[in-house]
Formats: sequence, C-alpha cells, structure tokens
Amino acid sequence: MSKTSLKHKVAIIGSGNWGSTIGKIVAENAKEHKKLFETTIVMWAFEEDVDVPNDPGLWEKLGAGPVKLSHAINTVHQNIKYLPGVRLPDNLVANSNLQDTVKDATILVFNLPHQFLSMTLSQINGYHRPYARGISCIKGVDVADGTVTLYSEMVMEKLQIYCCALSGANIAPEVVAEKFCETTIGYDSPPMDYKERDGSPRDNRVKVDEQRQSNSKPTHIKLSPIPKEYPPVESSLLKTLFERPYFQVHVVRDVAGVALGGALKNIIALAAGFVTGKKWGENTKAAIVRIGVLEMVEFGRTWFSKSVDERTFTEESAGMADLIASCNAGRNYRSALRSVEKGVPIEEIEETELGGQKLQGISTARAVHEFLSKEGKLDKFPLFASVYEIIENHQSVEKLPSLLRKDPKAQN
Amino acid sequence: MSKTSLKHKVAIIGSGNWGSTIGKIVAENAKEHKKLFETTIVMWAFEEDVDVPNDPGLWEKLGAGPVKLSHAINTVHQNIKYLPGVRLPDNLVANSNLQDTVKDATILVFNLPHQFLSMTLSQINGYHRPYARGISCIKGVDVADGTVTLYSEMVMEKLQIYCCALSGANIAPEVVAEKFCETTIGYDSPPMDYKERDGSPRDNRVKVDEQRQSNSKPTHIKLSPIPKEYPPVESSLLKTLFERPYFQVHVVRDVAGVALGGALKNIIALAAGFVTGKKWGENTKAAIVRIGVLEMVEFGRTWFSKSVDERTFTEESAGMADLIASCNAGRNYRSALRSVEKGVPIEEIEETELGGQKLQGISTARAVHEFLSKEGKLDKFPLFASVYEIIENHQSVEKLPSLLRKDPKAQN
Repeated sequence: MSKTSLKHKVAIIGSGNWGSTIGKIVAENAKEHKKLFETTIVMWAFEEDVDVPNDPGLWEKLGAGPVKLSHAINTVHQNIKYLPGVRLPDNLVANSNLQDTVKDATILVFNLPHQFLSMTLSQINGYHRPYARGISCIKGVDVADGTVTLYSEMVMEKLQIYCCALSGANIAPEVVAEKFCETTIGYDSPPMDYKERDGSPRDNRVKVDEQRQSNSKPTHIKLSPIPKEYPPVESSLLKTLFERPYFQVHVVRDVAGVALGGALKNIIALAAGFVTGKKWGENTKAAIVRIGVLEMVEFGRTWFSKSVDERTFTEESAGMADLIASCNAGRNYRSALRSVEKGVPIEEIEETELGGQKLQGISTARAVHEFLSKEGKLDKFPLFASVYEIIENHQSVEKLPSLLRKDPKAQN
Repeated sequence: MSKTSLKHKVAIIGSGNWGSTIGKIVAENAKEHKKLFETTIVMWAFEEDVDVPNDPGLWEKLGAGPVKLSHAINTVHQNIKYLPGVRLPDNLVANSNLQDTVKDATILVFNLPHQFLSMTLSQINGYHRPYARGISCIKGVDVADGTVTLYSEMVMEKLQIYCCALSGANIAPEVVAEKFCETTIGYDSPPMDYKERDGSPRDNRVKVDEQRQSNSKPTHIKLSPIPKEYPPVESSLLKTLFERPYFQVHVVRDVAGVALGGALKNIIALAAGFVTGKKWGENTKAAIVRIGVLEMVEFGRTWFSKSVDERTFTEESAGMADLIASCNAGRNYRSALRSVEKGVPIEEIEETELGGQKLQGISTARAVHEFLSKEGKLDKFPLFASVYEIIENHQSVEKLPSLLRKDPKAQN
C-alpha cells in the first residue's frame, strides 16, 4: 500500500446522530492512517437553524440565538442538535454545500434519513468523481412501488459508482459514547478495481441486483476503475476506515443480507413488543426472535436467491444482534408494547406519541406482506403475516401464538 | 400405529417446578392420545414434608400441618411447594416409591436436579424395563472430573437404555401458565428399534458419545428392542407426547448440541449481566450474545466433532432462544449484574443472595476453561476465557471489551 502516491478523500453525506457518529469514527481513523486517507473529513450538513443549548460555554462561542448547524459544528465541534454534549474530532468539518462536499471525494459515506437519499443523489450526480466508491450506512431497504431496493443499489444506479453497505446493532448514542459494539460491512468486491493476476483488465461491469429473482430487471452499470495512484478500495481498507477499539467491524460478501436484516428486524420487534405488552414473558419473546431470524433467512432466499448468505442473519451483527437489540429497546418494540398496554392500535401510538417519527416496522410489514402475497408465499412466513394482520386490525394480539403455530419448522 | 395392542406407560422422574410442568404437559397429551399412551402418568416425588400454604381450601383437605409432598399432589392436584397455585391434571399421579414408579414404564422422563441424577439412576437400575426409552429434560451437561458428559449419556450408560434430550427457552412458571413457547428435542433415532426395510434385524448397538473427540473412550451399549406390540418410539411419538398448543416442539438429530446449549448459555449470561451492570447498553449486550453463539458453535465442533450441528445453536430454541431468554432474565444474568452494581465478586452474590442455589455459569465457565486450556484452544474462545478471568478476579469487568477484541471472526 505504501507505493501509492494519492490518499483517499472521504466525505460523509448526512449529519444526524448516526451520520455524526460515523463521521467521528472515520475522522479518528483518518488521523491514525495518514498514508491512506486525507486527514480532513468533510461532512455534509443539511443547512438548518438550530437552537444553542443552555450552556454558557456554547453561548460564549455561538451566541444565544439560533445558528446554522454547520457553523456550530465547525465552531464548537459539537452537533448541538443531534448529538449534544459529544465532542467531535477537529478534523471532522461540516459543509452545507453538497456539491462542494462530494467533488473531490473518492469514498462517499451515505448516512442520512432514507427518505432524502434519492433527492440527494440527484443533486450529487455529475459533481462526484466517476471512480468514487460508496458505502451506505442507511438502515434497511427501500420498499416502495412493490419492489425491494437496497439503498446501496440506489446509489449504484443513480451515480453509476459501486456502493456497499454497513449495518449492525449500533444505537448511535451508545456508539458515540464509545461503548463496545460490533457492525457488519457487506462488500461484494466488484470485479473491476484492478487487473487480473495475468495483467489483463477485468470485466468492470457490475450487475445491480444480479441474483434478484423477482420484479425488477437486472441493470448493468459500468464502473470506472480507481486510478492506481490510490490505495485499492477493498475489504481491508474499509475495515481500517471504520473499525475502532469500541466498534468492531466484520466484513462479509453479502450486501443484500446486511441491508435486509436492518429492515426485517423492525417487523419482528413489533411482535416482540406485543408479546411483552401482553406480559407473556421471556420464553415467548425468545421464540419470536428465533422464528423471526428463520423468516429473515427464508425471505432473503425468496427475494435475493443465491446472493444472500443465511449466516448474515444467524451469525452477524447486522442480523441477529441488531434484531436482539431492537427487540429489547428499539422504537418499534416500545411502541408495540405501549399499544397493547393502552389497548389502542399501533398506528395511534405512531400518530400521537412519536413526535412525527414513523415506525419502520409498519411500512415494512405492509410492503413485505404485499410481496409475499403476490408471490403466493405468505404461508411460509407466519410471523411476518401475523404482524401484518395485527397492524391492520384483522387479528387481535391475543391470537398471535395460534397464528405462529403455522411455523413450518415446528411442524416437522 | 393403530395395529399395536399395547400402550406406552410414561413415568416422570422428578417433581420440582420443571418436573411438575412437564408432568402436566405429558398428562394432558396422554389423555388426548389414548391409543398411544396409558392415561395415568406416574410422577416420582422425592418424599419430603412440605408446609401447606395459607389457603382455607387447601387447609380443609390437607390440614394445617406439614404434609408429604406426594400426598398433597394426589389430594389437591397441586404441587404446593414448587408450583403453588397451579392445578395439575387428575391423571398426573405422584408416587414416592422410585422403583414402583419405573417398573412398568416404557418411557422414562428424567426431570430432577442434575446433582441427584447419578444416585437416582443407581436406585432405578434393575427395576426398569430393559427396553424402556429415556428422555432427559435436565438442563445442561455434567462437567465433573475434567470431562463433559451429557445427562442423556449418563442414563444410557447406567441403565443401558437409549436416552434423548429436551431443552429450550422454557422458564417453568411461564410454561405452566401456558404462555406460548418452543422447545427442542434432540433425538438421534438409534438404529435399533425395528427391522431394516428388507426385514433383517438392525445392528442394535448404540455408541455412547460416538463422535466424542477428547477425553473419554466410546462406550458401546446394546439396546433391547421394544416389543412390537408397542407403538414405535420415534420422533413423531415424542412430538405427540410433548407438544401442546402453548409448547411447540421441534425435533432435531443433534442430542449433544441440545444439551450443550443449555450449559454454555450460562457462561454467556454472566457476561451479559456484567455488561448491563456496567450500563454499556443494548449494542454491547447484543454483541455478547452474538459472540456467545459463535463460541457455542466452535465449542460443539471442538468437543463433539461431527455429531454437533451448528444450526442447533444458531436456529433452535435450545440454542439461541434459550440464550436470549437467559441473557434477559436468567439467574446468572441477574447475579452478574448485581455483582457489578455492588462492586463485589460474583461468588459473594452466590453465597449471600441466592439462598444456597448455585450459579451454573460459574462452574461451567471453570470446567470449560479447564478443557480448553488443556486442549490449547483458549484463544479461539475469547468470551468464555474472559468470563473465567473475571470470575477468578484475574481481570476486571472493565477489561471485557478489550479481551473480546481477540474474536477471531472480527479479525477477518
């Protein structure tokens, strides 16, 4: 690696609590690996006026009135709106100009609310380097319009660059507080960056959703090779960029599995919340998690066929660990629990108690139900199907155990 | 099955809370499947004097003074000591005479505290039918004398009968309250009960610990075939005997994995308790569970070689589900949490707060450490090794994350 003359310039797209947390991690690593990365990490901050917390130190530097978020980050090295109280590294620099943020970057880290991704990509397109590489830290998958799209695929299609995915049991405030955790990077090493061993150029097309069985036609994109003056972007470089002593990275080849885990877990967390609300205890909740993992595996197989590795769900942080954390403390879990305690539909909790935030479990359960029913495969997914029935008020929570008895594995 | 003229007689050996719970399940099923099973289920109760709870209904029938446990069960159909308040089926009959309980039984269900198994088997030996079949519901494995012995193996060796195992996320009071849960039966269909398809008799020897790699010599036992007047004992019969609407049974062929899961989870639950005590949050705990499952898989492979199926740990109730329940609410988890909160060694909690009960996690961690260090394989088990170091006060809980960074999978 030491023969290369250029360094990677990393840009973070997004500066919410998870974006700022990943920004902190990447900035810490850039400082420690000066041969591989430019030290300054630019983080795009959607420009908004934010209130200054009631802290004399902050008031002294920022004044008392509302300030621009990027100005605050660069002045006091704190994201005073989304991660108040956390000191960010000096080499993490906020920029409110999106095109300016991406224009020299060779590695783009996408970490913004999923609903803004598509529009943001349109604004980036044409301003980014054609040989840049992307990594999506956005949880879950896009389930609009009757199809499942990975956010990494969306990046690939819109920007014509390779993009991989990062996901895991990573509640942002705990990560930023440097409490030990793990994450998974799904990286399927596109066959394009460098030459074959015999020196011949590799086929540099990547089939987007190569193994996809249903609904969408495979799209081929032609990737531009990274100039050889840069250190190669491969799994070890990604590990160096993201791993910290408190944030252990495991790289797998299964991008779809990594992304799917972060979406499907929310359906299961709703079921776990219903069960805890009913005071059915730890045995029942553990059964829900177990059945949920197996339905994740089955869904991965049904939807993405060969490209999904079931061990992503049963063994990785992006699978079972993220699921466990979500079923113990996630927003979907807590809201479902509350809906049972109050005896109201879950959508009422969503509307009245979440300050405008949406429950991913509800939209994912509906989308998954739509696909499965179109494919005639609902009977293989009793848990996903039951959660849908409960959300739609076709079944009461009371019925959940009897609906689960359709579990094909339990039938022997 | 309807051609058979005799019915199975099922005996439960043990009448604690889990024994009585399984007794209730088996008695319910015997009543529903009169062609397969004798309706009366005899449950051996270790004879002890028990106090009658302060309940006028009970006092009227039992008197106010201490009574024999078996007399109480048969008079008021309640285990007033170990499951007070739960109505047991009328066809579950307690018997304080062990030899009398087993003498006509064709299926023996072992469900007593593990430390009494060996002695109890000695008392049974010679009084049981030679063709009886056993199932052990005793959690975990025996780790005495530098070797791992499954309780099912202990039954096989001492009584020269086939024995399988049942384990899962099955906290007894929740099961007896008929809250939905799952369990796993490990049954490796010994090649002896009936003839080959061509009519020739099968080899009816079963190798005890056939695949065991270390420490003990394989023992061969010669099983007696079950008279053909009885319904065959096979996985479907076991499912019929144990499955209830609230207690879903999945049968796998991996007896060792089913038993090991119930032992190793206790080490991991200690780590989860330390983490929660430190307030390191849900990410860290989920990481502990994930690493723990992988160490279970590795331990199974190391110790039992080919006979262990890793999916028992990653997909079954006896594996990951039981682990999750234990890491959310088990005794080992709660005690480890308390030791951190109070800033005292875990053994002090064991001695002062558990009313004489022992923490299985401590003895299992020590035994597992002894095996692994003898085999030179400790470095493949950073979590098991760290828990041992913390228990022995060689390391502080504070060091747990750095000790875990040895996780070989995280190293890529």
